[in-house]
Amino acid sequence: MRAYNFSAGPATLPEEVLKEVQAEMLDYKGTGMSLMEMSHRGPEYSALHAETIANIKQLLKIPEGYSVLFMTGGASSQFAIIPMNLLGEGQTADYTDSGAWASKAIKEAKMLGNINVVADCGKEIPTRVPTMEELNLTDGAAYLHITSNETISGAQWKTFPDCKAPLIADMSSDILSRPLDVSKFDLIYAGAQKNLGPAGITLVIIKDELAERCPESVPTMMRYKTFIKSNSLYNTIPTFPVYVLCLVTRWLLAKGGLEGMAKQNDDKAAKLYAAIDESGFYTGTAVKENRSSMNITFRIANHDLESKFIAEASEKNLKGLKGHRDVGGIRASIYNAFPVEGVDALVSFMKEFEANNG
Amino acid sequence: MRAYNFSAGPATLPEEVLKEVQAEMLDYKGTGMSLMEMSHRGPEYSALHAETIANIKQLLKIPEGYSVLFMTGGASSQFAIIPMNLLGEGQTADYTDSGAWASKAIKEAKMLGNINVVADCGKEIPTRVPTMEELNLTDGAAYLHITSNETISGAQWKTFPDCKAPLIADMSSDILSRPLDVSKFDLIYAGAQKNLGPAGITLVIIKDELAERCPESVPTMMRYKTFIKSNSLYNTIPTFPVYVLCLVTRWLLAKGGLEGMAKQNDDKAAKLYAAIDESGFYTGTAVKENRSSMNITFRIANHDLESKFIAEASEKNLKGLKGHRDVGGIRASIYNAFPVEGVDALVSFMKEFEANNG
Repeated sequence: MRAYNFSAGPATLPEEVLKEVQAEMLDYKGTGMSLMEMSHRGPEYSALHAETIANIKQLLKIPEGYSVLFMTGGASSQFAIIPMNLLGEGQTADYTDSGAWASKAIKEAKMLGNINVVADCGKEIPTRVPTMEELNLTDGAAYLHITSNETISGAQWKTFPDCKAPLIADMSSDILSRPLDVSKFDLIYAGAQKNLGPAGITLVIIKDELAERCPESVPTMMRYKTFIKSNSLYNTIPTFPVYVLCLVTRWLLAKGGLEGMAKQNDDKAAKLYAAIDESGFYTGTAVKENRSSMNITFRIANHDLESKFIAEASEKNLKGLKGHRDVGGIRASIYNAFPVEGVDALVSFMKEFEANNG
Repeated sequence: MRAYNFSAGPATLPEEVLKEVQAEMLDYKGTGMSLMEMSHRGPEYSALHAETIANIKQLLKIPEGYSVLFMTGGASSQFAIIPMNLLGEGQTADYTDSGAWASKAIKEAKMLGNINVVADCGKEIPTRVPTMEELNLTDGAAYLHITSNETISGAQWKTFPDCKAPLIADMSSDILSRPLDVSKFDLIYAGAQKNLGPAGITLVIIKDELAERCPESVPTMMRYKTFIKSNSLYNTIPTFPVYVLCLVTRWLLAKGGLEGMAKQNDDKAAKLYAAIDESGFYTGTAVKENRSSMNITFRIANHDLESKFIAEASEKNLKGLKGHRDVGGIRASIYNAFPVEGVDALVSFMKEFEANNG
């Protein structure tokens, strides 16, 4: 029996996708090889590569003038690659601090250039993201960086700031979960292991003209220009993660694209937040207007009951509900591929646990 | 039917490994999840991670004082990361140029510091690697960099240079193919997609004290120290490639470790080189004393026959024999996992093709 896997990432994948990967493991489409064993410059992988990019462009309605790139090293590498490419000497980059991930991006960028933290609510409880009014933007900033969804705190930007500077977003934990006006952004990046596929690929969507800023001193593999020019094939790309990502994008298109996905995600999240709000036993961690539709974080007033909750849930096949080690509590990560039946099962368990312990 | 896959990388994997991955795809050891869907900090992945490192240490008899790291970005990223970490201002690093890959390492390093090319035979035909006597080493060099096997030219170092400077080797295409005295080296690195597993992980074996050189200005994800200190778990690691690598290391241990593998590799290569030498029709690309046991490169005097050879071989299920696009010719890559039956099939085909076209 498949588990209901609430893990924050690496996270659950669509069962249909795993079954297809399984079926093709020793023989990809009659070639007598696994996709993993094939040249990244051969016809089979090339077709998958092109289709994955086309599907992402279609899903996000990406306008002309942007490239879809596959890099490695996760969001943590992007935290350095962004200022290396885009923050010139003497310039200032604006960052919002909305929690643990934004804070890591800021810490790394500060090693490499001049940073202005334009709003800081990263340590507030209840958790939230900054309001537009709070942003103390720098005139002529190199860019403004935000973290669209804080996986640990469960706070999510619902609308995005207007600013003159290029807008950059770490969307690792909510990419492809809802429609997006990509034209508002100059750079979007996301580690794959939440909504996209297995760990090992970083999706980057970049306005081509932004990449032109990069100084020639930046190493080849750390330059966006290298990936734009080579179609992400400068060196051997992690083919297997892209293959799985391709199957995930097909699955998304078949499910009605991002409109369909957003509706399903909102419905799933609403069920859990309703269960929290109706209880008087559970307390949501984030302010209501910033509640994440991906990571539902909550507490029980008596914190000792939380580990009991997590252990008993696990016995009922509800796995991975422990909050991040830095903050504790309970976290239900319900990315695109998380089934609604698992949400219903958690809601039932929450009511039962409250009845027995409330 | 499985193909005989002579691809230079990504390359063929052991069929037993693929079957195990297939069997566990939807349910890793009764957890109800794929290994891909699990937290990189959970017990299942943690056990695999530790076992993979232990198996690599056992296979290579790695002495105390070294760490085994898993990074991303392939050898091409290491080309920059090495000088970023290890080449101080005012210092010189020595590089040998033995072909296309050494040459790429040199080009990248020159962007970042002062480089002395201590021997250059990278463009010679027949292809070879430098002799010890040729090396014009720099006194007090930061390190000496070599490329242990040139995948494109088919030339391989059979013994390694003695030098006072720390010795660094790109072993992407022959790592774990033969026993090695790791104590001669201060840093060994290898992209996974030839002898180790699927593309997406870079194996690094580093003497811990060497990593201490790194300036604090180097970004976190580009510092060896970060990976040593975090046991390669600073951020989300590509768990699936490590999982496959773990299975490959188990397979190697079961096959008699690197002694067993070297014997099998030498036997496979000897069969192909004998077929070349006995023919008078095929000509080996590399000088005999540097012939690679991994990438057997050869030509047919009438170059027009080469594409016919490759096409007819493909019809007989002998796939991926086309030489690299930069040099042409024929290349049979026969890494650890390539079966001896495939070598025998190629030898038969070579004789048949010569009889029909010689």
